[in-house]
Amino acid sequence: MAKNLTARATDYSRWYNELVVQADLADNSAVRGCMVIKPYGYAIWERIQADLDARFKETGHVNAYFPLFIPKSYFSKEASHVEGFAKECAVVTHYRLKNDPNGKGIVVDETAKLEEELIVRPTSETIIWDTYRDWIQSYRDLPLLINQWANVVRWEMRTRLFLRTTEFLWQEGHTAHATSEEAVAEAVQMLHVYGDFVENVMAIPVLRGVKSTNERFAGALETYCIEAMMQDGKALQAGTSHFLGQNFAKAFDVKFQNKEGKVEHVWATSWGVSTRLMGALIMTHSDDNGLVLPPKLAPDQVVIVPIYRGEEELALVEAVAKNLQAQLRAAGIRVKYDGRDTHKPGWKFNEYELKGVPVRIAIGPRDVANGVVEVARRDTLSKESLPMEGLAASVSVLLEEIQTNLFAKAVAFRNSTTKSVDTWEAFEAALDEGGFVMAHWDGTPETEEKIKERTKGTIRCIPLDSPDEVGACILTGNPSTRRVAFARAY
Amino acid sequence: MAKNLTARATDYSRWYNELVVQADLADNSAVRGCMVIKPYGYAIWERIQADLDARFKETGHVNAYFPLFIPKSYFSKEASHVEGFAKECAVVTHYRLKNDPNGKGIVVDETAKLEEELIVRPTSETIIWDTYRDWIQSYRDLPLLINQWANVVRWEMRTRLFLRTTEFLWQEGHTAHATSEEAVAEAVQMLHVYGDFVENVMAIPVLRGVKSTNERFAGALETYCIEAMMQDGKALQAGTSHFLGQNFAKAFDVKFQNKEGKVEHVWATSWGVSTRLMGALIMTHSDDNGLVLPPKLAPDQVVIVPIYRGEEELALVEAVAKNLQAQLRAAGIRVKYDGRDTHKPGWKFNEYELKGVPVRIAIGPRDVANGVVEVARRDTLSKESLPMEGLAASVSVLLEEIQTNLFAKAVAFRNSTTKSVDTWEAFEAALDEGGFVMAHWDGTPETEEKIKERTKGTIRCIPLDSPDEVGACILTGNPSTRRVAFARAY
Repeated sequence: MAKNLTARATDYSRWYNELVVQADLADNSAVRGCMVIKPYGYAIWERIQADLDARFKETGHVNAYFPLFIPKSYFSKEASHVEGFAKECAVVTHYRLKNDPNGKGIVVDETAKLEEELIVRPTSETIIWDTYRDWIQSYRDLPLLINQWANVVRWEMRTRLFLRTTEFLWQEGHTAHATSEEAVAEAVQMLHVYGDFVENVMAIPVLRGVKSTNERFAGALETYCIEAMMQDGKALQAGTSHFLGQNFAKAFDVKFQNKEGKVEHVWATSWGVSTRLMGALIMTHSDDNGLVLPPKLAPDQVVIVPIYRGEEELALVEAVAKNLQAQLRAAGIRVKYDGRDTHKPGWKFNEYELKGVPVRIAIGPRDVANGVVEVARRDTLSKESLPMEGLAASVSVLLEEIQTNLFAKAVAFRNSTTKSVDTWEAFEAALDEGGFVMAHWDGTPETEEKIKERTKGTIRCIPLDSPDEVGACILTGNPSTRRVAFARAY
Repeated sequence: MAKNLTARATDYSRWYNELVVQADLADNSAVRGCMVIKPYGYAIWERIQADLDARFKETGHVNAYFPLFIPKSYFSKEASHVEGFAKECAVVTHYRLKNDPNGKGIVVDETAKLEEELIVRPTSETIIWDTYRDWIQSYRDLPLLINQWANVVRWEMRTRLFLRTTEFLWQEGHTAHATSEEAVAEAVQMLHVYGDFVENVMAIPVLRGVKSTNERFAGALETYCIEAMMQDGKALQAGTSHFLGQNFAKAFDVKFQNKEGKVEHVWATSWGVSTRLMGALIMTHSDDNGLVLPPKLAPDQVVIVPIYRGEEELALVEAVAKNLQAQLRAAGIRVKYDGRDTHKPGWKFNEYELKGVPVRIAIGPRDVANGVVEVARRDTLSKESLPMEGLAASVSVLLEEIQTNLFAKAVAFRNSTTKSVDTWEAFEAALDEGGFVMAHWDGTPETEEKIKERTKGTIRCIPLDSPDEVGACILTGNPSTRRVAFARAY
């Protein structure tokens, strides 16, 4: 198995691509840029979905479902949105196929041309705000706190599994509010819902901040984001939450009567995370042996592998192993017993390493005699012998320890690669080294653009907790009041 | 609220359309034939999904995700499949939009034309079997038991909310097996998973059977189905499970080496249910006052409405109501307290009747004094006074009773409208009356087609439990060995 995996140091990008396929997470499909999410990868995505969905519901949101198709003209209604989204899209122009008159398969029926083309949604603000017009009349109808789990399509020229695919899965929240303050509070709340989830469940530390004007969502007044740091020193935007002001309400004529009887436009937010999170997960924790999964997301937290020669030893070992499996299950641990006789233990060890199962337990006849098992941790690759007695409790503790350790390791890496610089030379060098570069910036889009052209570095965010500090812009020397986080990014 | 609902006796079809919109289940969108599933409707669908998903996993299936788009040529590979599915489809021909050179919005960029058109999946056999070719080499890779939750698109000319929409949500299982027997067993197993779910959770009785050749899925050797009977006497196909033989394996060249080292084509099944189930749910239980929901699917099983005049009474009643709510919640009951002061109790009663909440509890100051509450059942519209003491237990029993009663009522209706007939005159009369018509048929597609042309009645299924019985075909008089279930259908 893992023998064929390219080392990260050799070629990080190749390591990633190979790992995604070899660990059975996803694969390229016959359709350009569209991936197949394989069962093992999808099981992780299901855990991400379930945990996020519970957090959305705890904060008062409900799910709904809006159409896949959006009439082309809708994109023109919000001026900046059209520039951002109505470009590289899948366009439906016809609604019928027919048998080829020349007998060669099937062809598009040219008589079945749509009057107005339909766009496969790249994001749903337009169709949703077109719907909200009918749902909102009074302040009593507000706030409207709706989320949708859906597939979206953006016709990307260069695609990579999970990180950038033509079709991807995501959730998109779209909320409507009576006041600007309430909408901003919602956008900030969802930023923290994302941040808490990604840190506590995915064990990925993130910077929480706002985007600069250049990096803002097309149609937003403010974009909040969480930014993670990958092992190769490139940043990855892991989630965004937008304060949309009244832009979409004005574009789609969504008004409400307030408590004083005055008619106003509604205030909006939208927020989303996608299967891109799978990419962040892989690139934060995994190593040259394969995937490393935080226990909270692992479909199997523990695998038990029997070690034996012959039927007699198997019978002995299997009975004990299954009994331990039952004990661990009763303690709420997701545990698999791999009794396949088609593969040797060494092969299985490699496979579960490649697939990132947090804890591997091996049991042989001598272990049974001694009342112990061999427990291997995926995160540290270390092994220890643990008594069978009280195993469920000790494994529970171990799983928590692994979860904590993965986060601590990722924080340490992120911090060790984050640098504060004050000169252009140091800035360029720091970007080349990788990691976040905290530097002063004069706050203008022009300067940001120039920095991007020269270095490929972008402002990932202006961190919410970044302290006031007088300084001079790294490029222009103009005054700046706080440092912002630059990096090269996925 | 419900005052505006057309009575079923007046116009069943209009009643249905109004109910779906008024009960906040779904609405038509700006995109022809595509619906918006509103939060209340989606919450029911989520419960359907969660319950089915657990049943799929219990029977060894895992979820995955395959591309939305299918290359046009794939449809031509399986001869009968192309006839059934590659006709009324959404066709993607371009992948870019650009600003209109004349300054009028955006237009399709004609230079961005796809070499091969992509079809928005109407069903995924082709793309999935194209993928399985890479996943299956040996009998060790089998069985492959995969399900997908997804949206699909079929360009329907006449659409109705939930029953027939251009885009709908569904699950599609696609399994691969080493033998014909195993694949048939899987198809039958899933038929019963569907049947058990629909009967025990949705409280909808179904006939379980096989389709006649004419009604079979395009590409299947055998289609198993569950058929429900709606209140207007029309049948509704609620789920199907197909034994696909080796058709797709041959079309996409999917082979495996069996235990004896011989290379064979793989055996297949596929099975699916969709948001159409929501239509069946509505049309089985609901009445002229609105939706009626079985407790197992109701997002809110109980609603508590306070009755009061003035602040003082409210304070008294609210404290008791919230305490009861907590007790019911602790017993695992989904209960909502509606303390809105913007609406009168009568308005709320109407609303929860319209939305089908199984149990409504009203509490006023006198109830508090007497230690009782007023409990109203949605299914029978009857009321009774129940002691607060032990309310969680009595409501739990009541919810079970409602679930049982709804199923029993639906069974009684289905049975009372099912007729066995032996003459053509009686057959036509029975079809006109509605309900299933059990009649002899000579087993030929030609006869079935003629019957359909003359009566609009189709063979809904050949019930699995239909006993052997010698008879004469209702149309031709030719010999028949068992009765089949005819009906007019949605």
